[in-house]
Amino acid sequence: MTMTTTPKSAVIAIGGNSLIRAGERGTIEEQLRNAHATARAIVRLVERGWKIVITHGNGPQVGAALLRSERAAAEVYTHPLDVCVATTQCEIGYLLQRAMEYELRQIGLFTPIMTVLTQVRVHENDPAFQNPTKPIGPFYSKLEAEEKQRRFGWNMVEDPSRGYRRVVPSPEPVEVFEEDIIRKILGLGMIVIAVGGGGIPVIEHPGYKVEGMEAVIDKDRASALLAAGLGVDRFIISTDADQVYLDFTKPTKRGIPKATVSEMAAYLKEGQFPPGSMGPKVESAIQFLQKGGKEVVITSFEHLLDAIDGKMGTHIVP
Amino acid sequence: MTMTTTPKSAVIAIGGNSLIRAGERGTIEEQLRNAHATARAIVRLVERGWKIVITHGNGPQVGAALLRSERAAAEVYTHPLDVCVATTQCEIGYLLQRAMEYELRQIGLFTPIMTVLTQVRVHENDPAFQNPTKPIGPFYSKLEAEEKQRRFGWNMVEDPSRGYRRVVPSPEPVEVFEEDIIRKILGLGMIVIAVGGGGIPVIEHPGYKVEGMEAVIDKDRASALLAAGLGVDRFIISTDADQVYLDFTKPTKRGIPKATVSEMAAYLKEGQFPPGSMGPKVESAIQFLQKGGKEVVITSFEHLLDAIDGKMGTHIVP
Repeated sequence: MTMTTTPKSAVIAIGGNSLIRAGERGTIEEQLRNAHATARAIVRLVERGWKIVITHGNGPQVGAALLRSERAAAEVYTHPLDVCVATTQCEIGYLLQRAMEYELRQIGLFTPIMTVLTQVRVHENDPAFQNPTKPIGPFYSKLEAEEKQRRFGWNMVEDPSRGYRRVVPSPEPVEVFEEDIIRKILGLGMIVIAVGGGGIPVIEHPGYKVEGMEAVIDKDRASALLAAGLGVDRFIISTDADQVYLDFTKPTKRGIPKATVSEMAAYLKEGQFPPGSMGPKVESAIQFLQKGGKEVVITSFEHLLDAIDGKMGTHIVP
Repeated sequence: MTMTTTPKSAVIAIGGNSLIRAGERGTIEEQLRNAHATARAIVRLVERGWKIVITHGNGPQVGAALLRSERAAAEVYTHPLDVCVATTQCEIGYLLQRAMEYELRQIGLFTPIMTVLTQVRVHENDPAFQNPTKPIGPFYSKLEAEEKQRRFGWNMVEDPSRGYRRVVPSPEPVEVFEEDIIRKILGLGMIVIAVGGGGIPVIEHPGYKVEGMEAVIDKDRASALLAAGLGVDRFIISTDADQVYLDFTKPTKRGIPKATVSEMAAYLKEGQFPPGSMGPKVESAIQFLQKGGKEVVITSFEHLLDAIDGKMGTHIVP
């Protein structure tokens, strides 16, 4: 895999709030409205000549998909987790693609855009499979949780206030199966939506036998892997926060406008970034830059354009 | 839209039995096993140098998706029908793509294959919207059916033996939004899975405002439209039957090895092909040929290779 940097190309990983905001139930109408707001920001980059790959999470959507499957299990066939991830790629891809198509046309652009079903290979012996940590799907009572554990072998964790929840492995992404396809499509001048929900986690057995896994891949890690593989020069992480902060919960709280990989690695080691939120984003940023990326920008979609101009957000460089 | 015929290119519309067979519940394991059997037939065409677009139905899958959404409606956001169609494109696309990838590699081929989320435009004033006829989703009791009608404005029909069922419009496909994208991807030498379930039905309002519809498009009609637009030379309809029959339920039953458009149109007018099954296939075949297609082959996937060689199936020519 050679690293050739294409000027003005970016992978933009959009966060949960780009589709479902705090306090929303996440109806399709709400998700579509939010998708339009995000799309309005992204099309400004397209207008400036950027080649764009959009990646996205699927936390609430895949949780809902699992719950739907479970509630109808007595009547229709169930969806295992890998299939649920697949379905959310088309659910969210459809909304994002429609929003992007509309917002592009509003500024006179007709750039083709497509949603690419994406499988991501993980290692069968990834330690995550021995230590599932990612909570997913609905909350259960103690009795229900015990039954799930017994019947399906699920790993359950207790959430003191809301009951029990299934946890699944979150293995490291090793290879984006569709990377080469995405590169070629980008080469045709199209916008690509890919690696939805971190990609469908699969392992590959000898003889090209691929197996879908009951796991989820962190979308920022998978996006960083894709960004490095494609050789885009910028990896943009769109999140709730306008930038990355130090001492986030303290009176000494301050934003990081610009930092190097070694500075961010040191902050990470200090425990500045919580494991569940900013931690994986900073780790993904470091991975991209260590593989040859030029710059990572972490900001909210509201500040995307200013961030690209260097006026907002956190900029991480090698 | 110009019609340039690419030699040895085909759209293959695969039928329901390629994924769920009679007597099966349609578990993901069953669907995957059936997908492999279909893929083993299709890769033989790829081996011979055919450029392939695979399209597929989604009847049982979209019915299950609607039921899942309904059963979980008190707990998570619901999926309207257009979103259900979208999710089935990735559900089935994932299984077909995995099966194709595996079966290609078994014969030493590494042809890239991708699943393309597909929207299909229909006319807002299509008469189907005034006359919904396509049964979809679960069966309901009389009481439930009346409630659905009242609460959601659904059109319900009575099935004498199994209860009440929702019917939705099945409008004519007018334009495959992603046709140009699919053409370019085919040009890169990739296999494409597209127009799943007939495509997500959308209408386009002035100002490029696209709206998803509570409707389903016949997958053979949408496939014929795509096949004609792409300018492939063959449109292959894979179905339960090894070929098209005349007098299907009579002692005079006989297969049609070869026929012209006008012969088939005459049989259609005679009422030889029932509206729910072979009728739309023959109509789609005629549409493709009238738009410049060279040949339509109707057969079962078991006879695909022999049918391509002219030894099996029904061959319809202009």
